[in-house]
Amino acid sequence: ALHHPQPTSAPYPLPPSPDPISILPLDLKTPDNFVPRDPALIRLTGVHPFNVEAPLTPLFNQGFLTTLNLHYVRNHGPVPQVHDSEALSWSFTIDGLCSSPVTLTLSDLLSPRFEDEVVSYPITLVCAGNRRKEQNLVRKSKGFSWGAAGLSTSMWTGLPLGYLLSLAGIDTRKGKYVHFEGADQLPNGYYGTSVKLSHAMDPERGMMVSWLMNGLPLHPDHGKPLRVVIPGMIGGRSVKWLKRIVVSDKPSENWYHIYDNRVLPTMISPEESGNGTEEMVKVWKDERYAIYDLNTNSAVVYPEHEQQLSITPEGAFTIKGYAYAGGGKRVTRMEISLDQGKTWRLGHINYPEDLYRTQTESRIYGGRLDLSSNGRDASFCWCFWELELSISDLATAKDIVVRAMDEAMMVQPRDMYWSVLGMMNNPWFRVVIHREGNNTLRFEHPTQPALQPGGWMERVKKAGGDLANGFWGERQSGEESTPVS
Amino acid sequence: ALHHPQPTSAPYPLPPSPDPISILPLDLKTPDNFVPRDPALIRLTGVHPFNVEAPLTPLFNQGFLTTLNLHYVRNHGPVPQVHDSEALSWSFTIDGLCSSPVTLTLSDLLSPRFEDEVVSYPITLVCAGNRRKEQNLVRKSKGFSWGAAGLSTSMWTGLPLGYLLSLAGIDTRKGKYVHFEGADQLPNGYYGTSVKLSHAMDPERGMMVSWLMNGLPLHPDHGKPLRVVIPGMIGGRSVKWLKRIVVSDKPSENWYHIYDNRVLPTMISPEESGNGTEEMVKVWKDERYAIYDLNTNSAVVYPEHEQQLSITPEGAFTIKGYAYAGGGKRVTRMEISLDQGKTWRLGHINYPEDLYRTQTESRIYGGRLDLSSNGRDASFCWCFWELELSISDLATAKDIVVRAMDEAMMVQPRDMYWSVLGMMNNPWFRVVIHREGNNTLRFEHPTQPALQPGGWMERVKKAGGDLANGFWGERQSGEESTPVS
Repeated sequence: ALHHPQPTSAPYPLPPSPDPISILPLDLKTPDNFVPRDPALIRLTGVHPFNVEAPLTPLFNQGFLTTLNLHYVRNHGPVPQVHDSEALSWSFTIDGLCSSPVTLTLSDLLSPRFEDEVVSYPITLVCAGNRRKEQNLVRKSKGFSWGAAGLSTSMWTGLPLGYLLSLAGIDTRKGKYVHFEGADQLPNGYYGTSVKLSHAMDPERGMMVSWLMNGLPLHPDHGKPLRVVIPGMIGGRSVKWLKRIVVSDKPSENWYHIYDNRVLPTMISPEESGNGTEEMVKVWKDERYAIYDLNTNSAVVYPEHEQQLSITPEGAFTIKGYAYAGGGKRVTRMEISLDQGKTWRLGHINYPEDLYRTQTESRIYGGRLDLSSNGRDASFCWCFWELELSISDLATAKDIVVRAMDEAMMVQPRDMYWSVLGMMNNPWFRVVIHREGNNTLRFEHPTQPALQPGGWMERVKKAGGDLANGFWGERQSGEESTPVS
Repeated sequence: ALHHPQPTSAPYPLPPSPDPISILPLDLKTPDNFVPRDPALIRLTGVHPFNVEAPLTPLFNQGFLTTLNLHYVRNHGPVPQVHDSEALSWSFTIDGLCSSPVTLTLSDLLSPRFEDEVVSYPITLVCAGNRRKEQNLVRKSKGFSWGAAGLSTSMWTGLPLGYLLSLAGIDTRKGKYVHFEGADQLPNGYYGTSVKLSHAMDPERGMMVSWLMNGLPLHPDHGKPLRVVIPGMIGGRSVKWLKRIVVSDKPSENWYHIYDNRVLPTMISPEESGNGTEEMVKVWKDERYAIYDLNTNSAVVYPEHEQQLSITPEGAFTIKGYAYAGGGKRVTRMEISLDQGKTWRLGHINYPEDLYRTQTESRIYGGRLDLSSNGRDASFCWCFWELELSISDLATAKDIVVRAMDEAMMVQPRDMYWSVLGMMNNPWFRVVIHREGNNTLRFEHPTQPALQPGGWMERVKKAGGDLANGFWGERQSGEESTPVS
């Protein structure tokens, strides 16, 4: 059951067919010289390791589900090579605090024994570094420069993690954490991390061990042949090339669990963070600073960066973008301001994920469509928002700022929370409006990914503006209030 | 089992003994003329209905658990009178989408049949209106003026809601919501509301039906003899005087579920919200705007409002306060700034709730100490933070601002999110520092509860400052950056 027919129609979005891809010349000299890839992906860390995001507009235009071609990738090192002939015998273990440790092969997971437990549902994966370029422009962090396309959505098929854990007779009283370990060999050992056991056992959190992405066997960059997929959390917890699951009373002590995917307190500088003192190691190991759930975030896609718009007296323009929240929460409102946050307008939100909920007992790619069959009401996917604005309003505004709020009333803040790894960046997304002559507006996004030049943050910084002054490096003018001490 | 001996010692905080209270003269002319109360509680809506908070400092000084005397109360109308002789026969029903609806009396809940299922644990209840006075000073909302003491912590004992629901054979596929209805008769009918069924069934969310508060039968103001208690959510979902639980595919249509406890989008004015149009009714009924989980919040207790401090060259002062988060999340950091958010210092956080986790198989008030016995790791209680500051630093600062962040990286924002009901107010808590002559500092909190005068917000507003200008009504001076367009 590694191969399934692609359904031709459904009352919910189906994955778009991927375009054919082949091994690219620039990968030939790297350890990944066997991995076919799409040349449209923007490389964020040179040629290798492969860390990429799609250009924002094509990603958005694909719609709700992203093809393999444009799915972002975060690889810490060389991709483990697994031949098709080896895939079914790929095995992983579940051990630690459990009465009956098990070793399972992919072939086992596909056996009739588990058939009724297989699930399929769409999940938006998001890198904790999404929008990090903005952090790097305020102050260089220890991470590379993601733009705003560090997220992608696929239909994933697999077995619920909680179900697999129950097979091993785990000790839910002593056990507090579930560790995952991948097969990727890195400078600091295998990649590994952990999540809370209570989250792993909660069906509303939807964690799974997966072998199909959009109905196709996993691509090498996405964990071929088996990986963990965790909705609502940062991508860094969804371990690829899965080899081991361990139930423990302690969080993972893997190097990547400690020194990656954390938001240290903002006052800790890059220099201080690397000073190696006992005190600083204690800070790194403080689980309170580990990132699990995504925070609420959004970005503008239209108007695009450097898009131009003719000023017409009666014209209108529809601003569009995406938003997401963490931990299964729904984005509940999207607000847009043309006066730097003094007043706000309400955007319209479209939730394609809800189209899957209305189906009863649907199956796809050999899995139950989980949202319909078990009554789950958590939200695991991005949503789309838009608002029609009159061009005359745009022509008199300095900028567009947008913010999302989620069902727990987490609202994107005006201020950036800078931290040493530059993660979870989610302040208001701001697009500057330039007037070009009498007839044209030009729009400027905050940044462009990787080393690509452009964006108002780079421009303001070069001109000596203080991006951390609370007003995007601009001095406030026209303040109505009188000073009161 | 409505009466339990008070334990004399435990390795975790035990409830302080309540002081004797009696019926107060000012209650005699109200329908609540049978309810004994503590005169220290500050009445927020005149004499009746009884809506009160404690003075902030005494509440804080009680420590982790709050006595009955100082526990905040939110009553929408007259308190239902239930005599001691009627308590055990008090009944409630569970019906709706379930195969075997049940009616249970309090006596049933206390029977040996349920003995092993009874649980006890500390829960901080917080009113959605906590800190609303600040909203009302920015713009009058439709709610009365809570200060920063709209929260209290008790040890609650009862039966898990999920367990009770399972007795009724609920349909977890069709069922999506659980409605609660109280016995309080109000202008718009009985008080009622609903929560998600998935949350009700999740043991990590800890919802219970309770008959003991700090080991004592419920006081009339707190739901005598039976109520729902929901950790991590606003107090408005914890229905008192419980009469009915209904499993439904729709949220509650009770007036109080629709027109109370919502954060409408900020652009909706009080006038617009009450215009009664079909469109506006639709906005009120939009479940996306209903508040469930608390948002992350904190307040300064020391220095107190109007506290004075002598300036000594080598002196130090320890700033202290409380913080909480919602949905079972932990507060993971507390940051303090003396330069209006330009730089931050890290506070020390103390989590008394964790003292209950280290106990094994402990029982109190006839219930299992749930945190220790089932491995739950959610956080349901407030925590305390502090930081020692040198008086010389305080003497050169204009103010102290503090913010909490939770494990999902929800950080208190600088800006207030104003909304028509004035709920969930959680911007940075700011204490202004005044220099009085050469030797003394005087501190000023943002507000005082109810109609009590005082606080920098009232002062700035009276002087014509615009509290919504992003800088607390003050004009920014000493801006280092040059203007960049």
